[in-house]
Amino acid sequence: MDESRDRLPAVDGEPIAGWIRDHFERQAFMDRIGATIVRAEGGSAEILLPVRVGLLQQHGFVHAGVVAAIANAAGRCAALSLWAEGTEARTAEFKISLLAPASGAVLSARSRVIRSGRRLGVFAADVFAIARGGERCVAVALGTIARHPESFR
Amino acid sequence: MDESRDRLPAVDGEPIAGWIRDHFERQAFMDRIGATIVRAEGGSAEILLPVRVGLLQQHGFVHAGVVAAIANAAGRCAALSLWAEGTEARTAEFKISLLAPASGAVLSARSRVIRSGRRLGVFAADVFAIARGGERCVAVALGTIARHPESFR
Amino acid sequence: MDESRDRLPAVDGEPIAGWIRDHFERQAFMDRIGATIVRAEGGSAEILLPVRVGLLQQHGFVHAGVVAAIANAAGRCAALSLWAEGTEARTAEFKISLLAPASGAVLSARSRVIRSGRRLGVFAADVFAIARGGERCVAVALGTIARHPESFR
Amino acid sequence: MDESRDRLPAVDGEPIAGWIRDHFERQAFMDRIGATIVRAEGGSAEILLPVRVGLLQQHGFVHAGVVAAIANAAGRCAALSLWAEGTEARTAEFKISLLAPASGAVLSARSRVIRSGRRLGVFAADVFAIARGGERCVAVALGTIARHPESFR
Repeated sequence: MDESRDRLPAVDGEPIAGWIRDHFERQAFMDRIGATIVRAEGGSAEILLPVRVGLLQQHGFVHAGVVAAIANAAGRCAALSLWAEGTEARTAEFKISLLAPASGAVLSARSRVIRSGRRLGVFAADVFAIARGGERCVAVALGTIARHPESFR
Repeated sequence: MDESRDRLPAVDGEPIAGWIRDHFERQAFMDRIGATIVRAEGGSAEILLPVRVGLLQQHGFVHAGVVAAIANAAGRCAALSLWAEGTEARTAEFKISLLAPASGAVLSARSRVIRSGRRLGVFAADVFAIARGGERCVAVALGTIARHPESFR
Repeated sequence: MDESRDRLPAVDGEPIAGWIRDHFERQAFMDRIGATIVRAEGGSAEILLPVRVGLLQQHGFVHAGVVAAIANAAGRCAALSLWAEGTEARTAEFKISLLAPASGAVLSARSRVIRSGRRLGVFAADVFAIARGGERCVAVALGTIARHPESFR
Repeated sequence: MDESRDRLPAVDGEPIAGWIRDHFERQAFMDRIGATIVRAEGGSAEILLPVRVGLLQQHGFVHAGVVAAIANAAGRCAALSLWAEGTEARTAEFKISLLAPASGAVLSARSRVIRSGRRLGVFAADVFAIARGGERCVAVALGTIARHPESFR
């Protein structure tokens, strides 16, 4: 990790736990689309995604698949932030409702854990489109994360 | 369109309707990830996606967001195949259950319309991971498409 | 309607619109299970359900189907509260995550509209189990309502 | 169990496993609405529900909550049919798309397991409305069952 990363935003002065950042950054697809994790602590997380041409669908809005991808990734990171280092978390399922076309300069996916159990976590996530004039919620998601404590130790 | 495209697989000797192929090919994100539509007729559709490094998550499997993206795109194309040329179809929502890690050489998302109404369509989609040894269903999805007949005419 | 109904709780001193209450009370199943609507205004609604033996599953908790039924009914009433009298609203789909066994004296389903469009509404709903010691969120739902403005006029 | 029950329909001459029937029949709510399990074997199940006035919504169709309840119950029984006697199965979540108003003499919820893992099962279920003229699919569902092998032994 280079130094600049250590200056990324964080909650209450705490950086994102290093292992969650590593977890996120090992996801080639997140890197490919240009997504960055800016917060993952205490059961919530945020992922930012600058909007680029390669992420769009036929009408010039961000593709629903991209919106779903960052909502899900934010949900998983929120769950990880409550679990011990090295926990493996797989998305079992999620549902996403697309409320409005996603346009703007940046998308922000913000998630929070609404149940954290021994074997399953449940998250909610909202995706906002941020433009000069403010931000607009373009999607809401609800998903289930399977926790595998024994993995990666 | 180059000539080779006209020789893509089709159902019963019929090519994919040109406007649906155009619709699909105008989606920069589908192009970016390397997805191809190979069938869209009579309420069903299929999208193929060669697996590449840039589509993976941290354990070397295809990212859930990518799996969701092609399932959704296949569902929308299946709905379009029942509707008149120029119909706009937006995904209102979808749910996806991830059954197994997605690995292999190619993913195939196969969808079918299970209800086509005046204003809404409902689709089911399965995503298969295809490898030398055969294929395995790695995800199932269910989604709702909002139909906007007045658009794009 | 008897007089006592006019004294049911309401938001900001406003009663539930009469047509929404009628809409709710014509649902034989809501009556059968003993559900009451106590609020439906400005895009949110609340339904109360006293817990009775006939609503339970095999372990003595309220059946998931009952929890889903009141979450969905609350979502529909929240949507109606934003729409004109006589609008017909059908649930197109919903997803519910069951967070904890539902026990207690009363269940409360609280919903809010998160998108209200010309043809579709999207709601979120939480179901709480209320007992002497306080209340606990036992389920969260997300659903889509199809709006049929032309109906019932 | 009385004798007549032993003559209920079954697959390949096999009765429903007694413990699954017991599991189902201990659900007061299923009894209350009049639902019967007629099949649960090899990863699939069927529940029948005679349509009665107390199950309807305001337009005379079966309430979406009832449709959801039997879809979910069928999914859980399908999962149980693959697991050892005494396994506890809780619905973690489900999503249901309501395709058409549910009317007719009887509803049939038919489910099949599409993934059965050590900790989670995934089911699909279809609900059909059966009338003199035939049957019509009125809803499709997809859900996740959490398996608790250690329970009830």
